[in-house]
Amino acid sequence: MADLRTDGRAALDWAADYLERVGELPVLAQVAPGDIRSRLPAQAPDDPEPFSAVLRDLDEILLPGVTHWQHPRFFAYFATSAAEPGILAELLAATLNSVGFLWRTAPASTELEGVVLDWTAKLLGLPDGWHGHIEDTASTGTMAAMIAARETTGRHEVVCSEHTHSAVEKGARMIGMTLRKVATDDRFRLRVDELGDLSEAALVVATVGTTASASVDPVPAIADACAAAGTWLHVDGAYAGSAMICPEFRWAFDGVERADSLVINPHKWLLTPMDCSLIWTSRPADLRAAFSLVPEFLRTPDAEDALSLSEYGPALGRRFRALKLWAILRCYGRSGLQEHIRRGVALAELFESWVAAEPGWELCAPRHFSLVCFRLEGDDERSQEVLQRVNAGGEMFLSHAALGGRYVLRLAVGQMSTTEDDVRLAWDVLRREAAGL
Amino acid sequence: MADLRTDGRAALDWAADYLERVGELPVLAQVAPGDIRSRLPAQAPDDPEPFSAVLRDLDEILLPGVTHWQHPRFFAYFATSAAEPGILAELLAATLNSVGFLWRTAPASTELEGVVLDWTAKLLGLPDGWHGHIEDTASTGTMAAMIAARETTGRHEVVCSEHTHSAVEKGARMIGMTLRKVATDDRFRLRVDELGDLSEAALVVATVGTTASASVDPVPAIADACAAAGTWLHVDGAYAGSAMICPEFRWAFDGVERADSLVINPHKWLLTPMDCSLIWTSRPADLRAAFSLVPEFLRTPDAEDALSLSEYGPALGRRFRALKLWAILRCYGRSGLQEHIRRGVALAELFESWVAAEPGWELCAPRHFSLVCFRLEGDDERSQEVLQRVNAGGEMFLSHAALGGRYVLRLAVGQMSTTEDDVRLAWDVLRREAAGL
Repeated sequence: MADLRTDGRAALDWAADYLERVGELPVLAQVAPGDIRSRLPAQAPDDPEPFSAVLRDLDEILLPGVTHWQHPRFFAYFATSAAEPGILAELLAATLNSVGFLWRTAPASTELEGVVLDWTAKLLGLPDGWHGHIEDTASTGTMAAMIAARETTGRHEVVCSEHTHSAVEKGARMIGMTLRKVATDDRFRLRVDELGDLSEAALVVATVGTTASASVDPVPAIADACAAAGTWLHVDGAYAGSAMICPEFRWAFDGVERADSLVINPHKWLLTPMDCSLIWTSRPADLRAAFSLVPEFLRTPDAEDALSLSEYGPALGRRFRALKLWAILRCYGRSGLQEHIRRGVALAELFESWVAAEPGWELCAPRHFSLVCFRLEGDDERSQEVLQRVNAGGEMFLSHAALGGRYVLRLAVGQMSTTEDDVRLAWDVLRREAAGL
Repeated sequence: MADLRTDGRAALDWAADYLERVGELPVLAQVAPGDIRSRLPAQAPDDPEPFSAVLRDLDEILLPGVTHWQHPRFFAYFATSAAEPGILAELLAATLNSVGFLWRTAPASTELEGVVLDWTAKLLGLPDGWHGHIEDTASTGTMAAMIAARETTGRHEVVCSEHTHSAVEKGARMIGMTLRKVATDDRFRLRVDELGDLSEAALVVATVGTTASASVDPVPAIADACAAAGTWLHVDGAYAGSAMICPEFRWAFDGVERADSLVINPHKWLLTPMDCSLIWTSRPADLRAAFSLVPEFLRTPDAEDALSLSEYGPALGRRFRALKLWAILRCYGRSGLQEHIRRGVALAELFESWVAAEPGWELCAPRHFSLVCFRLEGDDERSQEVLQRVNAGGEMFLSHAALGGRYVLRLAVGQMSTTEDDVRLAWDVLRREAAGL
């Protein structure tokens, strides 16, 4: 057992200390597979242990095995942040332990979810009247869109580009749809002239901010093709969608207002702790038709007036995720979130300028947001080797991707605590390791 | 923004105060659809607000719209508890903000998940060597089992009973499988003599502890039929599975050791905050074959030795859910969890004895665990009316189900804070409202 006041104080201190010192820890966990497991007992204790023992083992056993997503020099994948208001909201959500499978089982959670989705839609400049709800991850939201498209159109083909996130391929396999990948152009954008016949396509997935290079598919032209063929248009803005909060980045989202569904992850670039992925649809009745199934034990007297969000997606049990997004939106406000996005983009722009100016290095894709794709000139092995050395050192963590058949390095800025010094240090380490090849 | 120390202290005090006073609040939120939304602004603030404003509005605006799952007289659905060690672990998990899509992105989270699943398997008496991981809800875990069964057998039929959870029907629809429901006997158990030809069945879902009445399907006979037909056996123990921690309830789980997959929800009856649903499989290679998809950007040098749990289920991004289960298992230990389960069962048994002895009331199903199904004798409308009055009063919250074509009331004990006085009060209120009909 644990006392929420005294043990809670210790947990809170641990959390605050952690965020203060995380920048001094190696970013990528410096352990080998099996190391952490080997240091844990083979079975649960028979009798209660104090919570202080949990905190002690978190420090001594688990921490060396943590890859620090909250580290200012986490530049891999899409760097994320869990900001303090969101962290505290998770404490409160766990305390309430609402289970929102029906409106009546969690009216506050259900209605706040609608409200924060509307707030976010306004912040991002989405059309009025879209229906939004929260899923755990973009994998689930995108799968939900695919199912709704299949049920609505009666078709079974999913069309996307070769740079679309792998979750679409995985989702298609899971739900028994076929997948057709369309070639991309020299800027890694879906080629509309290769879209082909969409008359059998349930949906097209267009991406604004692809995983490898943050490229931007030509959404208006794809929307035209979908409209002509009666095909559902799903837009994946999981990473970049948050940038719509800044007017100067809205050019990249031209055409998104014509989507049938759109996914954006506040747990990626809007400071919200994992997990919080938003899905909006301009066709709520179609989404509900695909997912509503109300057995007798869930029928309630208020069902006519009360929206139950489990009818709009795969899961029945839903936790109170809206609380953390509400806390973030209020404690940062539009201006604070804009500042966060702009700072990330500016730091990436700065890094890009250094790479562009450095002999022996090259940029590999246009930079639109906070992601820079770059490499060492010459064989792929050289960039690969630099990445391994850099990550092994623990000073920073980068990841890679394949672009046009070449191995490229990716530096993604997204952590709230990342400063110019951090980006400069990353660049210094990269050049140091490259020089040592 | 928020300060983790000062705002955190306030949030922690709020949480501790809430758990101390929740028993005095109306269990079922006494609001009408739209009430909460109408009290919230139409848009997010432009500029940052202090976290204290969030806490204030949580109290003043949201709290009246909270149905209190942590209330000692929450007896609806399957009553759950989020205990303090789990609540604090959620604070810590949000602070670390690990995203476990690969081993290397979260070694501690990945390996601790394996360890706590092994610990739990031992506590429950499951066979050695099963592979377990955590999903958000039983809906997802069961869907994962259905997909693995389809991919493994090449068949598309799902067989279950008319009392199987609706998530199976919803999942089948989502993934394009057909569903066949088998009749149940007079104790609401799947009738094995009605199983029919399983040669085209991908899987049979057997339930130990059904949603309506906690009935127990005859797993050994179903396992025989599945073995003969090469059909995957999935056991849904979402609610009752936790009771396996007590040897005296293991009789109900006879045959579960022959399952191909098994789902149990610690967020239901093992004190773990939402969401935490466990799935084990005796066929990990088949699960992995169904879900593994590793694109270039997720390939890592350590992939040969390092298990990435996203290869075993639908989602790519995975939060650090293992931490809260670890905290619960350690801070309660085997003995503390056994005591929690036994107390719930004993209270249900007591309530059952009162109903059995009371003229005008009847029991509607055998009671195996902590759920009692009962009704007023006579027309369904009488029980329906009593339920509405009881829930409207706010002193307690019960739900209902359909059993054998009749409307029945369900009293489920699961809250850690529920005492004999609470159950007695529930019985008093029920009789009072029945007398007033």
